Amino acid sequence: MNYRVVFNILGTVIKFLGISLLIPLVVAVYYNEPESILIFAITFILVSVMGAILEYTNRPEFDELTHRESVVIVAMGWFLVALLGAIPFLLAGISPIDSLFESMSGFTTTGSSILPEIEIYSRSILFWRSMTQWLGGMGIIVLVIAILPRLAVAGRQMFRAETTGPMKDKLRPRLKDTAQILWGVYLTFSLLEIIILKFAGMTLYDAIVHTFSTMATGGFSPKNESIAAFGDPFIEAVIIIFMLIAGVNFSMFYRTLRVERKSLIRDEEFQAYIFIIAISTLIITLYLWNWGETLQTAFRYASFQVVSIMTTAGFASANFDLWPDSTKMILLLLMFVGGSAGSTAGAMKVIRVILLIKYGLREIYRLIHPKMVRPIRIGDTSIPDDVMQAILSFFVLYLLAFVGSTLILSAMGLDLITSMSASATTLGNVGPGFNLVGPNFAAIPEIGKIILLINMWIGRLEVLTVLVLFVPSFWKR
Amino acid sequence: MNYRVVFNILGTVIKFLGISLLIPLVVAVYYNEPESILIFAITFILVSVMGAILEYTNRPEFDELTHRESVVIVAMGWFLVALLGAIPFLLAGISPIDSLFESMSGFTTTGSSILPEIEIYSRSILFWRSMTQWLGGMGIIVLVIAILPRLAVAGRQMFRAETTGPMKDKLRPRLKDTAQILWGVYLTFSLLEIIILKFAGMTLYDAIVHTFSTMATGGFSPKNESIAAFGDPFIEAVIIIFMLIAGVNFSMFYRTLRVERKSLIRDEEFQAYIFIIAISTLIITLYLWNWGETLQTAFRYASFQVVSIMTTAGFASANFDLWPDSTKMILLLLMFVGGSAGSTAGAMKVIRVILLIKYGLREIYRLIHPKMVRPIRIGDTSIPDDVMQAILSFFVLYLLAFVGSTLILSAMGLDLITSMSASATTLGNVGPGFNLVGPNFAAIPEIGKIILLINMWIGRLEVLTVLVLFVPSFWKR
Repeated sequence: MNYRVVFNILGTVIKFLGISLLIPLVVAVYYNEPESILIFAITFILVSVMGAILEYTNRPEFDELTHRESVVIVAMGWFLVALLGAIPFLLAGISPIDSLFESMSGFTTTGSSILPEIEIYSRSILFWRSMTQWLGGMGIIVLVIAILPRLAVAGRQMFRAETTGPMKDKLRPRLKDTAQILWGVYLTFSLLEIIILKFAGMTLYDAIVHTFSTMATGGFSPKNESIAAFGDPFIEAVIIIFMLIAGVNFSMFYRTLRVERKSLIRDEEFQAYIFIIAISTLIITLYLWNWGETLQTAFRYASFQVVSIMTTAGFASANFDLWPDSTKMILLLLMFVGGSAGSTAGAMKVIRVILLIKYGLREIYRLIHPKMVRPIRIGDTSIPDDVMQAILSFFVLYLLAFVGSTLILSAMGLDLITSMSASATTLGNVGPGFNLVGPNFAAIPEIGKIILLINMWIGRLEVLTVLVLFVPSFWKR
Repeated sequence: MNYRVVFNILGTVIKFLGISLLIPLVVAVYYNEPESILIFAITFILVSVMGAILEYTNRPEFDELTHRESVVIVAMGWFLVALLGAIPFLLAGISPIDSLFESMSGFTTTGSSILPEIEIYSRSILFWRSMTQWLGGMGIIVLVIAILPRLAVAGRQMFRAETTGPMKDKLRPRLKDTAQILWGVYLTFSLLEIIILKFAGMTLYDAIVHTFSTMATGGFSPKNESIAAFGDPFIEAVIIIFMLIAGVNFSMFYRTLRVERKSLIRDEEFQAYIFIIAISTLIITLYLWNWGETLQTAFRYASFQVVSIMTTAGFASANFDLWPDSTKMILLLLMFVGGSAGSTAGAMKVIRVILLIKYGLREIYRLIHPKMVRPIRIGDTSIPDDVMQAILSFFVLYLLAFVGSTLILSAMGLDLITSMSASATTLGNVGPGFNLVGPNFAAIPEIGKIILLINMWIGRLEVLTVLVLFVPSFWKR
């Protein structure tokens, strides 16, 4: 292991984290929040100096990264950023574990909150809380296009080959350029959402923080009641549309605009993504209608909540924990599916779910024609065996993590629905759960919070990237 | 499709079913139950004549079976037997759906009961109810050693090659002989259990019907309170031991006695089977102790219930639905694991769970050493890729069936825990569930009962064997 390279890159990441703290500092100055000015000034100096020292004391002779070093940088980097990003919360009076939980929830774009009362914190603290998600979203874009495919983690190599348009067509063969293009998409949609939300009647502050949460599929809101606080169907509609966008493979937008107009509509993952959302919305609308809501309200709540859970944003426009169990079962399933690969969404991703179902059903075909070989296809492309193997392994490990986490939580005396939904929602980087974790995660015991923040971390990094750190042979040689 | 062969063999199976109805007829005569004598006499004549006609009118010219015909015989055969075996229940006044549910539950060795009040039925009817399980168990032995491996269903080809001792060693190369050996094992243990239960203080009737349930890992009891009705630790211990035996690969007993003394102890599946039971018992004992039971009672209840659920027998020695949620989470997981391959137990089977975990963990190794090929092993044997593929597909389809069934049940207004546990317990051929389906399945709406009996059927036949019937191309040519 070339620790110099590792520390050097981690130092750069931390330095940028430090610099990004200037933004909430400006917000604190703007709103004249003396205590928060102090908090962000201290954290800014601490984090950026720490990053700079780490970076400059570890100038590597060569900067070629091996698999091993990339894994360490990604896994430890995410954890360190969450740890240092928690400092403002800690200084604002939140307990250490709760601060780390909130920060990890932000940087992994989960949006599960530990805070029973949100509005008591200063505007700049809540700005930072929302901004951690948006920074996390930028990190995910690099992770998904550059790092995981190179490491062949969880079948990501296929997503690179198949769906990341710019690379496939060699229009922009270099990773750095691809990252810039996709960051451009991310930034453009973010600006657009801020403008529209402002136009819809939000304050500029609310428009920015809710955009951070939407485009990163995070789900934090500075309001205790989340989006329900606005009670405005138009705002909900705008957020639905941008959540939908944030759950689509970003490279598809580039491809559609620059390469082939029908790319998006012809994409099998996009079709399935829209289909799952449409059918779930339809069913939940009918349930809520039958439950006593008007058809219009039922559709309004159902569409918002389905998109919110499926894209792993996790905003709430109504207290869906009170809804009938039949709707909660659907939402629980959507927590496992998640958005598209190549988006900021979490969970298993639509493309993997499609491939798993195709894989299962192919066995029926094999039983009828035992001697025929039938490859699994997405569009015109056969999926290579090693990619399918990576996806299947990911599925098994993801379920094992879910089962393990659920067992530990229920061992602490939490009921089954709380244990299961808390595990699913944190692993899938969704946000809210059911029962005890319907409103927030304050009721979970300390050790449970640690388990859940680990879930967010391993869920975000496709499980494997974190698990491998715990294998001794990974560190040898 | 050679329908003549199919009908001929189905006719033979039905004829034997008819003849087996003579046994409850004798019981009815012995206990002098006039109504039941009539019921079994009518059913005996009806079923055996129907079987004989079907058999003799379809004498095939050649009796070579293709894959396709074997599948139809297995899947339709199980369904027809359950349908005809339900006639005595129907004549005893149980509704048509309930009769089919109870019969399917018996022949698939599930042991989920639709009857809120069991003891109101005659002794011979309840004898038949228990006997359906034992007949189902005989069917499973043939299915597992002869039919599924030949069709390469769900990785069974490996179980044949690896664990069915007699075949591997070519001691007894012919299927018929193997079936006879394993039936011999089944019968020997059954006789032994009857004798010991009689010695333990049960009446001969109770000893026989509970043996039927134990050795087939069914779980029906003619008592409303199941095994709790006896309140006798010695009886519980005897039943625990025979449930444990019934959950072991039967060919291992033969192998251990005739081939190699240490076969059983060295078998990786057996080790894991015992380990899972031991660790689950330990944890549940501690929970129940902490919950207020004495350590002794806690161990007594925990060991019985863990073995009962894990082996998919599904007897109850206490109302475990009242236990803390942490214990129920463990029992719910065990419903998915099930006993060993080559036993009468249902669910996924220990060997598949081991292989799935090994498969998932291997991906971590692949991330460290991307270019090394490391086969998955059981003992000294590498698992071929196509076997692993069949097991993974089975896993995906099994979970899809679970999810689909849970969605439908919750759509009927059942709560999440009822929907999930009812789906898991019927797919895994276990028996009892939680909440509404804790005591019995009487509270489930009619359509839900149909879904659950289909679960039992597809769970018993390793999902694929039934699903393939619904593919149009299966029937063509």
